[in-house]
Amino acid sequence: MKIVYVKESGEKAIEQLLTKASFDAVELNPTIREANRKLFGADLTAAEIVDRIVGEVRRDGDAAVMKYTRLIDHADFQPEEFLVSDAEYEEARREADPAVLDSLRRAIENVRRYHEEQKPNSWMTYREQGSILGQSVIPLDRVGIYVPGGTAAYPSSVVMNAVPAMVAGVRELIMMVPPRNGKINPYVLIAAQEIGVSKIYKIGGAQAIAAMAFGTETIPRVDKITGPGNIFVTLAKKAVYGHCDIDMLAGPSEILIVADASADPAYAAADMLSQAEHDMLASSILITDSAALAEQAAVEVEKQLSVLPRQEIARASLDRNGLIVVAEDLMQAIRLANISAPEHMELLTEQPFQLLPYVHNAGAVFLGAYSPEPLGDYFAGPDHILPTGGTARYYSCLNVETFMKRTSIISYTQPALQNVQQDIIRLAETEGLQAHANAIRLRGLK
Amino acid sequence: MKIVYVKESGEKAIEQLLTKASFDAVELNPTIREANRKLFGADLTAAEIVDRIVGEVRRDGDAAVMKYTRLIDHADFQPEEFLVSDAEYEEARREADPAVLDSLRRAIENVRRYHEEQKPNSWMTYREQGSILGQSVIPLDRVGIYVPGGTAAYPSSVVMNAVPAMVAGVRELIMMVPPRNGKINPYVLIAAQEIGVSKIYKIGGAQAIAAMAFGTETIPRVDKITGPGNIFVTLAKKAVYGHCDIDMLAGPSEILIVADASADPAYAAADMLSQAEHDMLASSILITDSAALAEQAAVEVEKQLSVLPRQEIARASLDRNGLIVVAEDLMQAIRLANISAPEHMELLTEQPFQLLPYVHNAGAVFLGAYSPEPLGDYFAGPDHILPTGGTARYYSCLNVETFMKRTSIISYTQPALQNVQQDIIRLAETEGLQAHANAIRLRGLK
Repeated sequence: MKIVYVKESGEKAIEQLLTKASFDAVELNPTIREANRKLFGADLTAAEIVDRIVGEVRRDGDAAVMKYTRLIDHADFQPEEFLVSDAEYEEARREADPAVLDSLRRAIENVRRYHEEQKPNSWMTYREQGSILGQSVIPLDRVGIYVPGGTAAYPSSVVMNAVPAMVAGVRELIMMVPPRNGKINPYVLIAAQEIGVSKIYKIGGAQAIAAMAFGTETIPRVDKITGPGNIFVTLAKKAVYGHCDIDMLAGPSEILIVADASADPAYAAADMLSQAEHDMLASSILITDSAALAEQAAVEVEKQLSVLPRQEIARASLDRNGLIVVAEDLMQAIRLANISAPEHMELLTEQPFQLLPYVHNAGAVFLGAYSPEPLGDYFAGPDHILPTGGTARYYSCLNVETFMKRTSIISYTQPALQNVQQDIIRLAETEGLQAHANAIRLRGLK
Repeated sequence: MKIVYVKESGEKAIEQLLTKASFDAVELNPTIREANRKLFGADLTAAEIVDRIVGEVRRDGDAAVMKYTRLIDHADFQPEEFLVSDAEYEEARREADPAVLDSLRRAIENVRRYHEEQKPNSWMTYREQGSILGQSVIPLDRVGIYVPGGTAAYPSSVVMNAVPAMVAGVRELIMMVPPRNGKINPYVLIAAQEIGVSKIYKIGGAQAIAAMAFGTETIPRVDKITGPGNIFVTLAKKAVYGHCDIDMLAGPSEILIVADASADPAYAAADMLSQAEHDMLASSILITDSAALAEQAAVEVEKQLSVLPRQEIARASLDRNGLIVVAEDLMQAIRLANISAPEHMELLTEQPFQLLPYVHNAGAVFLGAYSPEPLGDYFAGPDHILPTGGTARYYSCLNVETFMKRTSIISYTQPALQNVQQDIIRLAETEGLQAHANAIRLRGLK
């Protein structure tokens, strides 16, 4: 683990180390690139591949979805086979371990309870002479969620995607999952069914995103698409943005731990590894004001790494994007953490709530020694679908409002309008809009 | 005015009439296209022009901003002249009519009061054994607002853009306005200054959007860009989306009035014209269950149109996108209105609040005879920056939350974590993530 000292390198240099490349600057790894060259007969960038797939699905519908599902996921489906059938659900039920299902159900219950507590109501406020202003807060009509399923299956992503949508009151929730050997993980299927997803399609990648954004003969058009995915899914979400809404453009997973001398180096190391094992591109950073902790954590990482089943991935990730920073004090640590704007920020300090108001940019904040990141990934209640790659500067965690929209309400009475008509007419005429002024003037007292 | 009857045409046909083309299907008018052909030396689409400008600004910064400001807005600025100077503010103060400023200030006050009432707090909720869950609701750090200024100047757009951002608590608010003869409208300048915009740049179009998204030598990078604009601004916002956040992709203005026999046809006509005068591409639709009202409103439109200063624009707009629909009943009218998903929906009915719960897709709803759309454009308090082109299916009106983001908070105690550790370990292992399980196991009671 690389350890850098702000005192030696200077704050500017550390800031640069912590600044992330933008989502469209990601290089494909050589294996994927070679596979795509065979598939497409040309050395295309990820963006070019996505533009091609999205364009074809928009134009050709199911035919293009079939084509790319066969090419990329090696599943030779007819359109009527996209949809998961009753038989497939039954098979999933037979395969699933009841203990895992019980744990999943308890997670669903926690996530539901937390999200129900944040559900906003429509509201009104009263003004002079009987006027009413307000806001309707309305669930989206149809939402499509994406659940990745390439190298591993993530039933927890179903929970974190689908529960907030159902709590919001979305009328119809559909789901896309890339098939593996033509099938979908049983826990993914069962979780989705129990939460209330009405249709699950065995379709993945850019073709799944495009199908939901534009609709096909068999797949309905949605109002919004949520959920994480690989670079092809992300670029497809960017391409369809505006034809429907999307939650965010997300990239590889990240953790940044702010710790003081009170932190247990074994905890810090374990939490860094829990990100690093996800993905070679994942990022795990520790910033501390304690040089001793920095050194002990680096030793602990090596120790714990050596017994991990996914140690190859974790080591590659730490080599690329692992970093321990020794800051001059905790406030500097937090300032640097805000520049990194990590998906997950842990405050492993003696008094974490004192630092909380200074956290400006993070997807989720984990306070204290007993709030490790996997607690949030699976179980506590808050969502694990979070902004990454520095986009916590402007994106929210997935939440109930992700699945709702706001509409203004204006109801004036005649005397109330009468009172303000001169102002409105003056402003409309200043902007040269006479018909606007007329609409007000007409309603004056006769 | 074209009048169509659902009974004759069938609901499906009317639904198609009400469905809008997507934002990227807009054709440039021949004059603009010819002008661009001269400018760029090739017959480029709007998207191609925008890609070129955004790419150059991202790469060359100020130099590209200078180039396109000279080419498109005919203003030969050096980078230090982008920013509005103290002398320019003083000149604006000398030019402005104090009565208009007073009206503007009253509008600002109403908009501020309404938005203050909706400002969300960060919150916490308590769980078993001393655990805390919650959400930080955090203002964005730096926001860029865009105010159009091509064919007309809109000080009201400054108010509607800047006030919610200031109420949210945005630390730094910058603004871009295209110059006209090298200058900016005095009311636009004064409104922005009084609300608290810290820097105003005389830059417009795709170059303004790209400069805010990526930053240049003189223009700071922002976290989010809000505000309406023409097709070039809209496509530029789409192009930079993900490098920063944006509010929405907006198009030409729209009104849809749902009216019953109790409505005054003169009011309905005046309100349709108040949209039609904006823009040839604006859309004005009346849906009513009363054939008599339909006919009277059509007559009134002709009558009022003949005396409008902007009648040429309004007539062209009504010819293209004006429509009166006679529905079989009010519930059908509302269903059709939801399919149109208009920017502004007026309920000119006897009991408008009875219809409100059925309004699913609209930017803003105006209830009753004395709530004409210009009241909301200028004065009542709710925002006039609203989704258009059918995107009210998924976009919100601009609001305080547009300028804030949500971050999850998780704080568990050791006994609380102990209670759930078996579930988390089981779920992590089901997903094959052993390091996740380790981070939990380590924290178990020793």
